[in-house]
Amino acid sequence: MAETSAGRPDATDYLIASKECEIQILEQLLRMGQLVVCISHLVHVLQRERGASNMYLGSRGERFGPELQAIRRDSDRQREQFHQALAALNLRQNTVQAGSRLLNRIGYAVHILSDMDRLRDEVGRQAIPAEAATRVYTELVQGLLAVVFEAADAAVDPDIARLLVAMFHFMQGKEFTGQERAAGAAAFASGQGGGEVSLRIQHLIEAEERCFEVFAGFVDPASWAVWRQCQQDTGLIEVERLRRLLCTSNERTAFDPRLGQRWFEVMSGRIDTMQQVELCLAARLEVLCSGKLSAARDSLAQHCSVIDLLPRFQQGQDDAFVVFCSAEGGLAGSDGYHGLSPQLGRSLIELLQSQSRRLQQMQDELNNARTALEERKVVERAKGLLMTHRRLSEEEAHKLLRRTSMEQGRRQLDVARELIALAEMWT
Amino acid sequence: MAETSAGRPDATDYLIASKECEIQILEQLLRMGQLVVCISHLVHVLQRERGASNMYLGSRGERFGPELQAIRRDSDRQREQFHQALAALNLRQNTVQAGSRLLNRIGYAVHILSDMDRLRDEVGRQAIPAEAATRVYTELVQGLLAVVFEAADAAVDPDIARLLVAMFHFMQGKEFTGQERAAGAAAFASGQGGGEVSLRIQHLIEAEERCFEVFAGFVDPASWAVWRQCQQDTGLIEVERLRRLLCTSNERTAFDPRLGQRWFEVMSGRIDTMQQVELCLAARLEVLCSGKLSAARDSLAQHCSVIDLLPRFQQGQDDAFVVFCSAEGGLAGSDGYHGLSPQLGRSLIELLQSQSRRLQQMQDELNNARTALEERKVVERAKGLLMTHRRLSEEEAHKLLRRTSMEQGRRQLDVARELIALAEMWT
Repeated sequence: MAETSAGRPDATDYLIASKECEIQILEQLLRMGQLVVCISHLVHVLQRERGASNMYLGSRGERFGPELQAIRRDSDRQREQFHQALAALNLRQNTVQAGSRLLNRIGYAVHILSDMDRLRDEVGRQAIPAEAATRVYTELVQGLLAVVFEAADAAVDPDIARLLVAMFHFMQGKEFTGQERAAGAAAFASGQGGGEVSLRIQHLIEAEERCFEVFAGFVDPASWAVWRQCQQDTGLIEVERLRRLLCTSNERTAFDPRLGQRWFEVMSGRIDTMQQVELCLAARLEVLCSGKLSAARDSLAQHCSVIDLLPRFQQGQDDAFVVFCSAEGGLAGSDGYHGLSPQLGRSLIELLQSQSRRLQQMQDELNNARTALEERKVVERAKGLLMTHRRLSEEEAHKLLRRTSMEQGRRQLDVARELIALAEMWT
Repeated sequence: MAETSAGRPDATDYLIASKECEIQILEQLLRMGQLVVCISHLVHVLQRERGASNMYLGSRGERFGPELQAIRRDSDRQREQFHQALAALNLRQNTVQAGSRLLNRIGYAVHILSDMDRLRDEVGRQAIPAEAATRVYTELVQGLLAVVFEAADAAVDPDIARLLVAMFHFMQGKEFTGQERAAGAAAFASGQGGGEVSLRIQHLIEAEERCFEVFAGFVDPASWAVWRQCQQDTGLIEVERLRRLLCTSNERTAFDPRLGQRWFEVMSGRIDTMQQVELCLAARLEVLCSGKLSAARDSLAQHCSVIDLLPRFQQGQDDAFVVFCSAEGGLAGSDGYHGLSPQLGRSLIELLQSQSRRLQQMQDELNNARTALEERKVVERAKGLLMTHRRLSEEEAHKLLRRTSMEQGRRQLDVARELIALAEMWT
């Protein structure tokens, strides 16, 4: 092969480059997994900080002051670890690998995080309404979850993608639980129930359940077992009792104000229990990524040793032509055309073909996992259209979509799909 | 922002990195487009070399000798340009960007190309049957087309992806025309028609038409006009007349052997005319890639100038919090919480949000273009399963799939989908 000696890459170089590409992607996925785990911890503590800030503001600074300080220190630690995990990804150097959308999402999350201290200052001086502070924390949590979503969508290994899909949906479900805690706490604190609260709580419970359903379809058995146990926790009895009070309340209902404290405690206990599932998912993700990476490295080493054998046989022999004749399957035999070393000749082509089949199969399985992300994308897209064409805020677009689907008794996904299909008629 | 001064990337860094990521991908797409154009030329000349080799071997070396030499020189030039375009892509350095599957396909094509000289030597010495030589060339052309397919599938810009989908299908349709030329030439040369030849020609015409249908769905208007003109070429009259002879022939038919020469000439004329469409597609691809790239560079410059304005205003002012409050849409106003400079504060968030919406919309349009590649993937996957589970060669798997779909009067796609769905029952 004169071309190779002249320094031009030959087929084996591309075979190895293809394998190295898989390895580099897995290495980045491993670090991305670590970022997702940091986000899981950060979101958990931000949910607590949101709740405590809410209670602090609601009590006009009389309660939750010291707890809030402790939670903030914990939150700072998690924020620092998040930034370290980002630095380890070295995204600015690996821009192409990271992808435009993931970088965009990270930019958004980093931007909101960078103003945490200012928000805390406002909360400390009681210069911001409880509802506004809650919304800012919620926006921040959603921004962080959007990073996990993109990480799941960008993962090219189907098993890792499946686990990230499970993880995203669990985190999103847990965040809805956090929002339910806030909505219930506000209702109990106000002492008054009613249709608005009742609908909001029912909607959130439904949203939680939809998330956990998707999670169930993609989770590993160990994390699933932790979740099953979590669903048997006796703390759920009181959660369900208080949920019933909220959901069956009306404008004439007067809640015992002490129920607010109790609700906050049992819901916080619930959310802490749920974090066990995330810890289990995180451990599984770490094991899976490392395992895939070392398997890919082993496979590269095997490829290299097979390839090393080839040149020795090819020197002075006429088997290279056979290498590709046999690629057609049966050509050598059926046409009476025989090469010198078909067994050996087959090896390179077979390496390429088996790699190709495996890559295609991975792609098929991946598409399967990504379908689960589709619903969210369609709904987000419909919201975006509403925001553009009707000049709504995101919150308003979300409410409109939710109200329409509730009124029509149809899934948000179906309403969103129709909205997108009809978008051209508005413009 | 103390974090930024300590060297930690802030939101604007990620916004710019996201934009730079788009630019790098477009730069690589531009070079990939150049590779695809080289492949178009190389495939065209390989189709001619296949035909000439076939005629040379069929005439026992009496005819087509000098033509073959001239074509080979042309072929060498195109091969060299292909290798130069590969070198310009610098794939071994950009492995992650190229993707495992594309690298795998290139490895396969490069591998078969590297043995061209040996094949030609066999042809020159008439030491290989015409049919075997034809199959090797066909395998090589398919290997090169597979690179174009992966390039189309890997393209992340929807407009470029659409054009590459059109280009792939046109090239594949033209290759079926080349195979039709070979099948017809062999039948006319043998002097005998029959059911096998008739079915093969009909199958190829059908496959060509399916390709040109997909092409029609994605082509740009200029290339479409060239194709319409190509379909009005008077040369088609004789093509259709000879096709009719082949398709209505049976075992008792005796062809005038001179028809073979005539068939070869008119089909070659047809294929040369078709190349005009590819040249037009190639020119459009170049313009599209360059245009997208300079638009992305302009957009980055705009982003940078907007971002440059931000720090000056932020110094000593309290607007950063507003930046993210306004991200929630209406928060600042509705809760009575007012920042200092909402107009300015919005700009960074709006840049991030509009980028995010645009990226999502691109993804949606991209999925649309990729659906067209799905059919081929499903059929390839089904063939792969047949090869593995029934230990068939690719040719045998292809024939089995084709025969089954013909016998059942159903589309290959549907038969392939069912095969895949039932695959688990075989193992």
